[in-house]
Amino acid sequence: MDLPDVHLLSSGTALPGAPISNAELAERFGGDALFAEWADTFVGTRNRHFSVDLATAEVRFRLADLGRIAAEKALDAAGLTTADVDVIVMGTSSPDQLMPATVNVIADQLGINNVPTYQLQSGCTGAVQALDVAQQALQTGRHRTALVIGGDTCTKHLDLNLDPAKLSPSELVPGLMFGDGAGAAVLSTTPTDGSAVLRKVLVRLTGLGRKPGHVVEWYGPADLADPPPSVGEDYKAIEESVPTMAVEILEEMLDDLDWKDVDYLLPPQLSGKMTDLIVKRLALPDAQEVSVVAETANTGNALPFFQLERLLPRLTDQDRAVAIAVESSKWIKGGLALEKVS
Amino acid sequence: MDLPDVHLLSSGTALPGAPISNAELAERFGGDALFAEWADTFVGTRNRHFSVDLATAEVRFRLADLGRIAAEKALDAAGLTTADVDVIVMGTSSPDQLMPATVNVIADQLGINNVPTYQLQSGCTGAVQALDVAQQALQTGRHRTALVIGGDTCTKHLDLNLDPAKLSPSELVPGLMFGDGAGAAVLSTTPTDGSAVLRKVLVRLTGLGRKPGHVVEWYGPADLADPPPSVGEDYKAIEESVPTMAVEILEEMLDDLDWKDVDYLLPPQLSGKMTDLIVKRLALPDAQEVSVVAETANTGNALPFFQLERLLPRLTDQDRAVAIAVESSKWIKGGLALEKVS
Repeated sequence: MDLPDVHLLSSGTALPGAPISNAELAERFGGDALFAEWADTFVGTRNRHFSVDLATAEVRFRLADLGRIAAEKALDAAGLTTADVDVIVMGTSSPDQLMPATVNVIADQLGINNVPTYQLQSGCTGAVQALDVAQQALQTGRHRTALVIGGDTCTKHLDLNLDPAKLSPSELVPGLMFGDGAGAAVLSTTPTDGSAVLRKVLVRLTGLGRKPGHVVEWYGPADLADPPPSVGEDYKAIEESVPTMAVEILEEMLDDLDWKDVDYLLPPQLSGKMTDLIVKRLALPDAQEVSVVAETANTGNALPFFQLERLLPRLTDQDRAVAIAVESSKWIKGGLALEKVS
Repeated sequence: MDLPDVHLLSSGTALPGAPISNAELAERFGGDALFAEWADTFVGTRNRHFSVDLATAEVRFRLADLGRIAAEKALDAAGLTTADVDVIVMGTSSPDQLMPATVNVIADQLGINNVPTYQLQSGCTGAVQALDVAQQALQTGRHRTALVIGGDTCTKHLDLNLDPAKLSPSELVPGLMFGDGAGAAVLSTTPTDGSAVLRKVLVRLTGLGRKPGHVVEWYGPADLADPPPSVGEDYKAIEESVPTMAVEILEEMLDDLDWKDVDYLLPPQLSGKMTDLIVKRLALPDAQEVSVVAETANTGNALPFFQLERLLPRLTDQDRAVAIAVESSKWIKGGLALEKVS
C-alpha cells in the first residue's frame, strides 16, 4: 500500500508577554542574586514567559488565545487560510477547561467548522503525538491539510499567593524550568516551496513498571477541602532516564529510515543544561543543534514547534533533520524525521 | 489508494459498584419520593453507578481501574491478549490526573509497553473520536490491532459535603443524568468470526459561533481561593440542538455510504427521555434500537461501548448498524457505521 507523503509546510509560535529572567523570578519569589546566577549556570534556562501577570495576578492569555495566535502564524507562513484546514489535532497538559476541549474554542476563534478535531492530553511528547495523529489522518487520503497545535500554560498551577519562604530550592527548580507558550504547524499532502517531507513519526510508551517521573493533579469541588500537592517531580529519575530514552528513540528512528547521519538535531528541551548533556549522549557531531529552551524555557507541548520554526528556513535540498522528545510523567519516547526534497 | 478494512472485534465494559436508583439518590441528596417518581418518568434514567461510595466518600475505583477492567473484558471477548495490542487510544473528559495521562496508567496495569498511546480530552463523542483515531492508525498499515478505551468518573466533581437544600431542581437534573463507567473495544485489520467491518467513522465540529452547552472546569492551586462553578449546563440549548445534530450526522453518514436503511440504531444517550425523542426524529422505523442509558445513565466517553457490547452478538450476516453521538460542550457530531460480513 503506497501512502501519500505528508509535508510539513510551516510552523508558528506564540509567547505571552515579556521574557522573565532568573533575576526577576528570584526577586518575585524571594530568591537572591546568587540563586539567579546559579540558575543561569546550572539550570541553563535564562528566561520564560507567563500567561499570568506576576505583579497583578491578571490572566492575560488563555491557552486558547496563544494557540489561536500560533495557528494563525503557521497558516500565514504556509500561505494558507483557515478554509484550507481539513482536520485539527492539538496536544496539551493544561487545557483551559476540561470541557469544551481547548482545540474547539480555538477552532471557533479561527472560524473553522465542520471538521474533525482531536485534543490529546499529553506532556513533552505531545507535539510529536499530535503530529503523528495528523500524519495518519492525512495518509489515509481522507484529508489534505491538517492544523496541528501544541501548548501549555501554568496559570492554574502558579499560586501567586504562596509564601516563597516555604519553598525549598528543589521546589524552585521545576519553577525555573517551565514557561508558557503555544506552537502550531501545518501538514499537507500537497507540498510547497518551503516544505519538508515528514519521513517518520515515532511514539513509544516506555513506562512499564516505572514510577511516574512527573505528576500533575487537577482538582474538582470534591477536592477543595483537602487538595493533594498539585505537581510532583522526581528530578533524579528524569536526569537518569531521559538521556537514555533519547538515545533509544534516535537509534530506532535512524535504523528504520536507514539513515547514517543527519544535518540537524532538535534535541529534548528540559532545561538548557539537560539539553547539553543529552546532545552529547546523542553523539551526532556533524549535526547542527536547534535549541530554544534557554530563551523560552520548557513550554511543554509547544516546544518542538519553536524548534521547527527555526529549522524550516535553514533547510536546503536533501537536508535531513530529526527531533527527539521525551515525556517523563509515564515515560514516552517520541521522535520525528524530516527531509527537504525540492 | 485501497485502505485495509478495519474490523470491530469486540467490546467490554465496567461499572463501579451497585446501581443507585432515583429513590436512593433522592434520599442521599434530600429529594422526596415525588422527585424520584418524576425522575423515573420525565428524565427516564432509572439508575447510575458511582466510583465513590456515597455513604463513606471512599473512592473505590479510579478511571484507570475501570478502563483496565473494560480493556481486559474486550481483549478476552476478542480472543486476544495484551501482547496483541499495537496501539492504544482513549477518550475521557475526567482523567484521574492531568499527568500521567490515564491511558498510560492503564497500559502499565495491563503490562503493555513500547506502543504509541493517545488520550483524547473529549465528551459524549469521545468514543467515536477515539475509534476514528484508531481506525486511521490501522488503515495506514502501520499497526494491526488497536485497543480503544473510553470512560468517565464524576468523583472529583461530586462534592458529598454539599448542602442538598442549596440545590435547585435544575441543578439536580444533570446529577441524575450522569454516571460513572468505562468501555473498551478491539479493532483489527484481521477479522474474527464475531467481528463487523467499521465502514465509516465521522466526526464534525459544529460549534462555530455557538455558546458551549456544557462547561466543566478544573482547578489548580491558584484557583483554590475563589473557584468558579465546576459544571455548567445549558439544558435548553442541548434539548434544542442535539436532536437536529443527530439527524444531520445520520444523513451525512447514510449518504456517504449510500445506505437507505439500517438494521440497528445506537442513538445518543443523554437520558432515557431525550433518547426517545431523538429516536423519533431519526426516523428509522425498521431499525432495532440499542439503548442502555435507562440502566447505566450517561457514562460519557464509555457509553457507546455499552451499546456496542449489546449489539455485536445480535448481528447476523449483512446486518448494518449506525451509532450516533453528540457532544454538547462545543457541539460535535459523531457517528459510526458497522456491517457484518461473513
